[in-house]
Amino acid sequence: MIYFDNAATSRPDEECLSAAAVYLDRKFYNPSALYAEGYNLHLELEEAKKNICANIADTDVFEAVITSCGTEADNHAIFCGGRRGNIVSTMGEHAAVFAAVTESGRRGVEARFAPLCKDGSVDADKLMSLVDEKTSLVSVMHVNNETGAVNDINAIARKVKAKNPHALFHSDGVQAYGKLPYVLSENIDMYSVSAHKIGGLKGTGALIKKKKLQLSPYIWGGGQEHGLRSGTENVFGIKMFELAAAKAYSRITENYKRVSAINARLRELLDERLFVCLSPESGSPYILTVAASGVRGETVLHMCDDEGLVIGTGSACSSNSAKRRSRVMSACGVGEDYIDGVLRLSFSHENTVEEAEAAARILSAAVQKDRELTN
Amino acid sequence: MIYFDNAATSRPDEECLSAAAVYLDRKFYNPSALYAEGYNLHLELEEAKKNICANIADTDVFEAVITSCGTEADNHAIFCGGRRGNIVSTMGEHAAVFAAVTESGRRGVEARFAPLCKDGSVDADKLMSLVDEKTSLVSVMHVNNETGAVNDINAIARKVKAKNPHALFHSDGVQAYGKLPYVLSENIDMYSVSAHKIGGLKGTGALIKKKKLQLSPYIWGGGQEHGLRSGTENVFGIKMFELAAAKAYSRITENYKRVSAINARLRELLDERLFVCLSPESGSPYILTVAASGVRGETVLHMCDDEGLVIGTGSACSSNSAKRRSRVMSACGVGEDYIDGVLRLSFSHENTVEEAEAAARILSAAVQKDRELTN
Repeated sequence: MIYFDNAATSRPDEECLSAAAVYLDRKFYNPSALYAEGYNLHLELEEAKKNICANIADTDVFEAVITSCGTEADNHAIFCGGRRGNIVSTMGEHAAVFAAVTESGRRGVEARFAPLCKDGSVDADKLMSLVDEKTSLVSVMHVNNETGAVNDINAIARKVKAKNPHALFHSDGVQAYGKLPYVLSENIDMYSVSAHKIGGLKGTGALIKKKKLQLSPYIWGGGQEHGLRSGTENVFGIKMFELAAAKAYSRITENYKRVSAINARLRELLDERLFVCLSPESGSPYILTVAASGVRGETVLHMCDDEGLVIGTGSACSSNSAKRRSRVMSACGVGEDYIDGVLRLSFSHENTVEEAEAAARILSAAVQKDRELTN
Repeated sequence: MIYFDNAATSRPDEECLSAAAVYLDRKFYNPSALYAEGYNLHLELEEAKKNICANIADTDVFEAVITSCGTEADNHAIFCGGRRGNIVSTMGEHAAVFAAVTESGRRGVEARFAPLCKDGSVDADKLMSLVDEKTSLVSVMHVNNETGAVNDINAIARKVKAKNPHALFHSDGVQAYGKLPYVLSENIDMYSVSAHKIGGLKGTGALIKKKKLQLSPYIWGGGQEHGLRSGTENVFGIKMFELAAAKAYSRITENYKRVSAINARLRELLDERLFVCLSPESGSPYILTVAASGVRGETVLHMCDDEGLVIGTGSACSSNSAKRRSRVMSACGVGEDYIDGVLRLSFSHENTVEEAEAAARILSAAVQKDRELTN
């Protein structure tokens, strides 16, 4: 089977699983316990958090708060970071940010969403025109999960701070962390990451935040995570995250090149008469979104699945939505002919160019077959 | 080593781990994905949730919403269930409820806490006197995590509904689920449970709720859990929870008897001249809390640890607190002489009576030695 839905979730890394298995067995203690076995685990978790943060930020300035997923990290940033005036975000955000900002709007904070460019990146000028003295939070995703477009968040954050130094800047980095070489600038206050997109486990994420930022907790209780996130720490998940992230960052350039070759080979092979490419060439190579006119993406997805090719149609998360059409694709201006035929192929370093070649054949055949059936 | 801190966390069940390992490997997909492999996982999760709920409630009336821990389930119930008027809770609650109710108090909902009886159960008459027509939520824990005292939540919920049918009733069932044979009555609206206290994993819990209860989400996003809890589902953790809970409920009476014998043996052996027993005889046999006068619990805990006996001092979660003295112990009226010498022993079906006998020796020796050192 060819698995090209790595932006939805990735296969947990076997080597990391073996290394972390001890936390399911010999080191199963509660890290809040006072005896040596518990306290030693606490120290190991503090080290893990520092390592997770150090991959992308200066640990003198930033720290990681462990959460149960990227969604929780996004909710924490939005609900606790944007409590007054207005929140400025974008039409391209993952539902975890978009729904939280929308809900904030229902609670009396004004929700403002900047439009997108055709490739899914935010229109930075229009975003800036929404920022004013009443803006308490700006949230702009790093890599768009539906197109792979990269927002230059350091540059946008700098502009935001120049216009309103009191506004906090948050970015959803779930599709960037462990994939794009990047270092957070001091203009970024909060950055959300997730373990299961990079070989870690579902059930672990983190909000990387400026140490000096006073943030209230979103989940209250026993005071774990220095009071910022209560609940018994998911030791196994956190260690898996640390290990998977270390592995991803140790090979980040090599993996980037490998995935770029897969992406490029697919772009080369996918017939222009059948597909338009919605992902920008300048975007993350980990995501390649295409659209075929006159077919339904979901039908093609199932036909490919039958042939051993697993792909997505936009965000897996929004599959739960009653609205079948992607808000993000609409905001990119994808027209009526193509919007139902969007397919997302997303890669990992475990994929190969040979898989890309096979996938191009399977995908083209499926689209042709579906067109013949419907015509 | 003798592990008597099972109320803090339990060793993940090996048999369940073997059975669930497939969700880290072959079945690693995103359950929101549309292809067959994803959708089949979604169906498996729906089945798991039903099974987790069925252990304690009628699944025609109740459903389980998976959360990342008991703390999140408690927060969801408090923050989304108690938005108006006043919330009535107890001085005995776990920090996950106590801190959430207290925070609600800072947000304009009146927080009312009922006092405790000497054994840690709530004074039900005084609780009822706090319930009025403005009460939106009542939250009373099922088994007190520091003393093991059992609140008759079905009876309390019936009285609450008789006085104010519009008030919601929530109970933190973390120390009861999988341990006490119990069925939720229809007067209970929400019930929090956790996986890692019964052989499951840290990072998974659930809020069991009445199906007809309209509750808003606490974590917003892609719409997982029928919109009630967004974020990619932690499939491995959820399946581990289902399996561990099934195992616990299949042997619940047998385990209860086994643990009761361990508890009784310890009560028999612990020298009355050294210890007072704070746990009621009528409480959960899984928890036995004692206090020794003139010693510091933490010192005794470390001395026991050195001898291979792992025990707790009250709630592991509140170890993070700067306040070393337990709010719950104070509310039970534990006096100055004893309050610093509280020790919690908590059991699982994996423990033995022989361990209890060895533990009594180690514990008594530690207390005697500490007294000699300090005198």
